[in-house]
Amino acid sequence: MNSRRYFNCTDRDRAAFEAGIKLASLYHQYIGAPVNPDSVDHFEKAMEKGMMAQPYMKKASVAVDRQVLNGSLTSYGYCSLNERMLKAAVTIVYEGIEVRASLGWMEDLQYPLMRIEHIRNIVSGDATE
Amino acid sequence: MNSRRYFNCTDRDRAAFEAGIKLASLYHQYIGAPVNPDSVDHFEKAMEKGMMAQPYMKKASVAVDRQVLNGSLTSYGYCSLNERMLKAAVTIVYEGIEVRASLGWMEDLQYPLMRIEHIRNIVSGDATE
Amino acid sequence: MNSRRYFNCTDRDRAAFEAGIKLASLYHQYIGAPVNPDSVDHFEKAMEKGMMAQPYMKKASVAVDRQVLNGSLTSYGYCSLNERMLKAAVTIVYEGIEVRASLGWMEDLQYPLMRIEHIRNIVSGDATE
Amino acid sequence: MNSRRYFNCTDRDRAAFEAGIKLASLYHQYIGAPVNPDSVDHFEKAMEKGMMAQPYMKKASVAVDRQVLNGSLTSYGYCSLNERMLKAAVTIVYEGIEVRASLGWMEDLQYPLMRIEHIRNIVSGDATE
Repeated sequence: MNSRRYFNCTDRDRAAFEAGIKLASLYHQYIGAPVNPDSVDHFEKAMEKGMMAQPYMKKASVAVDRQVLNGSLTSYGYCSLNERMLKAAVTIVYEGIEVRASLGWMEDLQYPLMRIEHIRNIVSGDATE
Repeated sequence: MNSRRYFNCTDRDRAAFEAGIKLASLYHQYIGAPVNPDSVDHFEKAMEKGMMAQPYMKKASVAVDRQVLNGSLTSYGYCSLNERMLKAAVTIVYEGIEVRASLGWMEDLQYPLMRIEHIRNIVSGDATE
Repeated sequence: MNSRRYFNCTDRDRAAFEAGIKLASLYHQYIGAPVNPDSVDHFEKAMEKGMMAQPYMKKASVAVDRQVLNGSLTSYGYCSLNERMLKAAVTIVYEGIEVRASLGWMEDLQYPLMRIEHIRNIVSGDATE
Repeated sequence: MNSRRYFNCTDRDRAAFEAGIKLASLYHQYIGAPVNPDSVDHFEKAMEKGMMAQPYMKKASVAVDRQVLNGSLTSYGYCSLNERMLKAAVTIVYEGIEVRASLGWMEDLQYPLMRIEHIRNIVSGDATE
């Protein structure tokens, strides 16, 4: 990785850092985008593919909560993508460290929380948490 | 249209106004989004569908200039969607007034110009410019 | 105006079109941005100045509804700028045509409506609606 | 921290993750925003204050490269904020772990790199890298 010399941290630190980057890029790029029941399937796939275009990505899934979407529709039959409906999970691998992280609305925090679900060493096919 | 009472202008004024809204929403929502040669087809369609979700839209086409895209790819094989590669055309109809407007990079202006290509009355199937 | 040759419409059409561009650029650029009671004054001014940087702008005012902001704060003391709290008014002048347009949440439509408040000829200091 | 139970990682992992979130939120929120020499000072401060509104932030500085800005101005005297002109540095502290991370265009990578500059334990006033 030719960017490695710019970092002053462990590979594990960087793996966690990259996971944070991916989730925040999704949120801040797409919140506010117009969405309706017809466009939502396609939009989810486009967001996933946009995430997969980024470095170290192994898996991405993005889902718009249909119940929240339907409850948010304006009198024009669409709405802006908001923090209560956007859900995502990403798996990134950097130098043998795998991080799974997710984004979703937490009712108790009233907050769209980004969190690390696991981080582990997968070097030589072996997973150690 | 239940929003009509909030406007103090002609139907034609509003038709032009709505066309401006659509193009600027596209630009400011998606500029900066990650894109690569694999994701770009899907992303174009998602942008089109997002535009079609909005009021008074009759047609939308969005294209990412492949030559500019390929020339903008970073060492990671993707780039951020930028003003030189995003092209779009929309047709909106409001109360019998049709507006066709487009967005595209203009070399002479060094500017991503949004412009009206035509505006005409299409009431009763009759088009008068 | 060196962009004029690209347009196929009246000056009044274009004035309305430009007003739509300005409001949608504000909305889709900044919805989702982090904001709290400490940062909001500064953020409003920055959004105004960003609007004033654009062509044909004569006046811009942007306000974040403090009551909605306070009611939207998460357990971390900030929130994402949303469609219910963003209000703006712009005045643009293009070739002697003045348009005043605004953005704001409409309870009855459950929609962040962008609308034209007036459009008039101000050529030679004379205003005719 | 009431969100802690949602994480399955070390405090250090989370500190790195939070740093990534902050830089990506800046980039994907503001790229594309209109900026000119008059508005840029105010815009920088607003971006900083928006970052400081977010959790675990200790310091933020955001700078728009004036040389790149001036070279990017369109015939209308402004431009869209782009990846070559946006620079930022953040310091976050989570549970006694301090991370300094930055964003900036790297000529050799042709890429707006987000990177960790240091990560260290600052518990009890003591800094250990």
